[in-house]
Amino acid sequence: MAQYAKPLARLVEELTKLPGIGPKTAQRLAFFIIGGSKENAHSLASAIVGAKEKIGYCSRCFNVTDVNPCRFCVDNGRDSTVICVVEEARDIVVLERTREFKGLYHVLHGAISPMDGIGPGELRMKELMSRLTEEISEVIIATDPNVEGEATAMYLARLIKPLGIRVTRMAHGMPVGGDLEYVDEITLSKALEGRREL
Amino acid sequence: MAQYAKPLARLVEELTKLPGIGPKTAQRLAFFIIGGSKENAHSLASAIVGAKEKIGYCSRCFNVTDVNPCRFCVDNGRDSTVICVVEEARDIVVLERTREFKGLYHVLHGAISPMDGIGPGELRMKELMSRLTEEISEVIIATDPNVEGEATAMYLARLIKPLGIRVTRMAHGMPVGGDLEYVDEITLSKALEGRREL
Repeated sequence: MAQYAKPLARLVEELTKLPGIGPKTAQRLAFFIIGGSKENAHSLASAIVGAKEKIGYCSRCFNVTDVNPCRFCVDNGRDSTVICVVEEARDIVVLERTREFKGLYHVLHGAISPMDGIGPGELRMKELMSRLTEEISEVIIATDPNVEGEATAMYLARLIKPLGIRVTRMAHGMPVGGDLEYVDEITLSKALEGRREL
Repeated sequence: MAQYAKPLARLVEELTKLPGIGPKTAQRLAFFIIGGSKENAHSLASAIVGAKEKIGYCSRCFNVTDVNPCRFCVDNGRDSTVICVVEEARDIVVLERTREFKGLYHVLHGAISPMDGIGPGELRMKELMSRLTEEISEVIIATDPNVEGEATAMYLARLIKPLGIRVTRMAHGMPVGGDLEYVDEITLSKALEGRREL
């Protein structure tokens, strides 16, 4: 890195800390920033600081938000009898894009993974349980369709079912627009298992 | 983007302006920044502003630098009789890594490309010509090995040769560590053409 002028070297180094940004990409980004206008650089910098300063977690659902409680939690237009449990705040963005789900959310901030030392205590499970009042009729578990996500779903189901609340899991199956030939066996068997009458 | 809290949406939008960063990558980076420490966010932001504010172009070679003239131009340990011409400042970084070249540089800031409306007037050619005093014995043209780079090299050679200065071009050939089978025909024919006695 001795080839760079110091402020440039520092920028490259900072950018390299971001996920998925290696030295080459960082260098390209740094030269782009230097080559751009002063306004653009300031705008990017203030957006970074602004997001970090203003964004926190909702004290009810633990979504990322700039107001507390977050706008999902205070939205009277949403069905407050259904809670959709997700691993990460970004999963909410994806679910919202479907425009299908109109209930509330709960972000666990991870999934059970003994290998990584993440047990139920490291996740926002206690907070979820405290939200399960009489009003709640269903909890949809939308954790990732992998080993950790499934383990978390099973664990939650066993905790919540005794309360007399319906616990559901997102369907496994073939991706829309995909090719049956390329679907893996496990997904295919799950798709068969969950087949529906036409 | 209506799903994001505003400061988060702004950050995603700003990040999307960077080259090679699409909406998904921008989102991942934004969540990483939000999830990180306040110090990290401030450090990244200040590196961006710092680089933009402190980095300018060397008035002699047009390399990016925080001092003017840049440290290559003022380095007495370098051979000031040879100038290596490159398209972009980042090419200098790559050349320096070889530790082979000890002369001076000149950054054109592009290559001749009539399709993009870039002629010799848009590049730092006049500035290069004014550097070609009696002291200069050789100009190495290290523009990119593509159509625009070749055209620029030919153009410069025709300008500089009449001054009695040696004009050379980086060798074309097989990449070291590559596989002959995968080398394209044009590169291969250039490699044959430029073959050397062993």
